[in-house]
Amino acid sequence: MSRSRENYHHGQLREALITAADEILHESGIEGFSLRKAAARAGVSPGAPAHHFKSVTGLLTAVAVLTLDELSERMRAVSTDLPLAAQVRELASVYVRYSMEYPGRLQVTYRRAIVDRSDPEFMRSSGEAFGQFFASAARYHGVPHPSRESASQMHPQLLLDYATVQGMALTAVEGNWRFIVSHDDPQGDFLRRILPMLVEARWPDKPAA
Amino acid sequence: MSRSRENYHHGQLREALITAADEILHESGIEGFSLRKAAARAGVSPGAPAHHFKSVTGLLTAVAVLTLDELSERMRAVSTDLPLAAQVRELASVYVRYSMEYPGRLQVTYRRAIVDRSDPEFMRSSGEAFGQFFASAARYHGVPHPSRESASQMHPQLLLDYATVQGMALTAVEGNWRFIVSHDDPQGDFLRRILPMLVEARWPDKPAA
Repeated sequence: MSRSRENYHHGQLREALITAADEILHESGIEGFSLRKAAARAGVSPGAPAHHFKSVTGLLTAVAVLTLDELSERMRAVSTDLPLAAQVRELASVYVRYSMEYPGRLQVTYRRAIVDRSDPEFMRSSGEAFGQFFASAARYHGVPHPSRESASQMHPQLLLDYATVQGMALTAVEGNWRFIVSHDDPQGDFLRRILPMLVEARWPDKPAA
Repeated sequence: MSRSRENYHHGQLREALITAADEILHESGIEGFSLRKAAARAGVSPGAPAHHFKSVTGLLTAVAVLTLDELSERMRAVSTDLPLAAQVRELASVYVRYSMEYPGRLQVTYRRAIVDRSDPEFMRSSGEAFGQFFASAARYHGVPHPSRESASQMHPQLLLDYATVQGMALTAVEGNWRFIVSHDDPQGDFLRRILPMLVEARWPDKPAA
């Protein structure tokens, strides 16, 4: 551990810790994570994270927010010129592909008791990421667009869409598509062959009105 | 720790360790699990599990097999007199309800690197549990019934069914239906109101041929 690295400017240590956490999660998944390891990788003393994050939950919540914000950004990059069915398929695929790229991050945003889900930033970023998907999916199904206020009355097809997206992503991240994918290149085979089949089965093209 | 409890008959210690592991998982989830804790709860020395299970993976694989066998049993109890759509909805619901009853067990069978998925008993029990579901779902969709040999060519609708069931269960177990369920009684509200809506949206009744 280099002493000089203790001299972070205000804000930089926070960033450095988030980056360190993200790298550890990327390499080892959530099972390999600890606040101590994050501090070591950021080059600061084991107690340093406490200045910025009250707990491991605080740090992981920051990673979750970063994750969801990146997801939103990738979703915003999906062309709105695509036909609606293709748009929904692409938004769902973006989520699954991102999850496979950063399995540790998905686990952080997903697993119970790891992040503080009542954190305002978490709620904002989570609402933004899934809001984009739900907005397109509602138009696809021709059902009411859910708002934060009407969430408890969300249309069953949108709830099913949510379950489907999470099921595809979590099954991919935990390696549970093994029974269908090629053993030589499971990830590549899933992305090229299975994922397009799944999203096409759930959101097929609709005949023009 | 009681010395007398070290005197298990052959086979009994194995059972006692599985039971202990199951109880710890039920109470604390996978994050709270260790081989040492399982040994302590079974009342044996920390090294005792090694006689029966080479590793924590060996013990958790046994828990996964027990889980999948219990699931199969509950699925076999679903009446075949039900109309086909209702049968599929009920098989899917059995899986989700069982997962919510034993969240630790679901995590064990589901998470990467926790169990030995190439273990012959795991493959058998997993094939049996999902085989029942896939058989009914294939009849529901009117698509070929998948066999172990034809698994790599499984029909997209069946893969989608699998993603849906896993997504519903994992989202429930990790508490991620929060945005839709009542805060007073999230589990009860999910089971009574949301789960029936989800399975009805995925597997609606079909008009009689």
